[in-house]
Amino acid sequence: MRFISEQRLDDGVLEREFTLGEIPGTLWMPEWTPERTPASAAPLPLILMAHNNGMPKADPRLVARARYTAARGYAVATIDAAGCGDRPRSAADERARAELGRAMRAGEPLDDIAASVIGPLVENAVPDWRTTLDALLQLPGIGGPVGYSGGWAALGIRLATVEPRIAAAGFHAGGFVPRAQREEARQVTVPLLFLLQWDDEGNPRQRALDLFDAFGSKEKTLHANLGGHTGTPWFELEDGCRFFDRHLK
Amino acid sequence: MRFISEQRLDDGVLEREFTLGEIPGTLWMPEWTPERTPASAAPLPLILMAHNNGMPKADPRLVARARYTAARGYAVATIDAAGCGDRPRSAADERARAELGRAMRAGEPLDDIAASVIGPLVENAVPDWRTTLDALLQLPGIGGPVGYSGGWAALGIRLATVEPRIAAAGFHAGGFVPRAQREEARQVTVPLLFLLQWDDEGNPRQRALDLFDAFGSKEKTLHANLGGHTGTPWFELEDGCRFFDRHLK
Repeated sequence: MRFISEQRLDDGVLEREFTLGEIPGTLWMPEWTPERTPASAAPLPLILMAHNNGMPKADPRLVARARYTAARGYAVATIDAAGCGDRPRSAADERARAELGRAMRAGEPLDDIAASVIGPLVENAVPDWRTTLDALLQLPGIGGPVGYSGGWAALGIRLATVEPRIAAAGFHAGGFVPRAQREEARQVTVPLLFLLQWDDEGNPRQRALDLFDAFGSKEKTLHANLGGHTGTPWFELEDGCRFFDRHLK
Repeated sequence: MRFISEQRLDDGVLEREFTLGEIPGTLWMPEWTPERTPASAAPLPLILMAHNNGMPKADPRLVARARYTAARGYAVATIDAAGCGDRPRSAADERARAELGRAMRAGEPLDDIAASVIGPLVENAVPDWRTTLDALLQLPGIGGPVGYSGGWAALGIRLATVEPRIAAAGFHAGGFVPRAQREEARQVTVPLLFLLQWDDEGNPRQRALDLFDAFGSKEKTLHANLGGHTGTPWFELEDGCRFFDRHLK
């Protein structure tokens, strides 16, 4: 892991860009101070934060969530996994994405075409996230436990299923979850906070409620708020941190 | 309003029993201290807290919620309204209640019989709650705004519809709401926190989701947790206070 830039933010958070082989990433942590040094402080819990379906890690909404969470005493990391953000995509990937865009604009049923785009994206992203997790847990001051927080529920379901180090997960319901991950949800058993926008334009409410019902977790909480896809109220950011406080601190 | 007993609790809360005409009630408030006097402190917001379908105000779960909420900086009041708790009931009321109990034990459909018991209970309780609200707002140190918090959603819907002083409401979905109040829900427009137990034995999930959908409030949040009727996790008590903090403080 090679750090290529760093920036001190107003809220006492240090934001660092890194590369790990071909993977570009960003890590946010509270700044060290004379009172809080890597030697004296308890290791920070780590939250992996992913944006939906391959959207770039620099998306302002993701960055705002990450900074807020880091200021609350977490190491927060995001990456552009294979095929995500500005990472190169194969000609076949590009064609599938273009076809998905066309189907969305035409108002056609999306299930099969979305699965053909997002399924492989999830499969390819998982190894990059696990490699990143290995590297992050080697850094001074980061000690786990590990949480996953993200709009990208499909990736989160996959990661929580295959990655035993993930101890709690916060998902946003507003992204397409292929059938494979909907079925895999039964295998997710970590404490779960599931966030639903009640009138999300592109995501049928009943499907989201069915997904919440399917998770295997004994402790799971649904927060639903009125409004459309991007209308999640600010207090859910704080509620999300409090959820992680309960399980990771 | 006549105070008939008072008790200082460990958490800095003063618990006082009162009577208001025929209405028995309990009021919890943070104790006054040399630093916090009725003259110096900002008036406390008031929360009316009701237990389900006429259950007594002394129910330990209600009392625990009330004490916790008062310690967070609220005046909290509950009463046994007409026909509730130990208040006298007419022979007709007693017969209707016995019939409801029989139907429940027999597993019969409850809608009509429950409506015939709970509908009049709500109608008769509302004037007692409004009389109590008038009296409470005359007390030193209590200045509103006013919230309603309760398992008794049917009463809360009625009160929030007819009582403009109620500025925010927290309902537990796990009680029978007669059709009249389900229809009245559209007229409830205050900010709302709606609490649902996902596997509540006696309360169909879909009916609760439909009720949440029906409320006219622009700001409404659903919290659903795994488990049965009495399994609400402790952190929802804190979340409920934070909801009221946002709207009443």
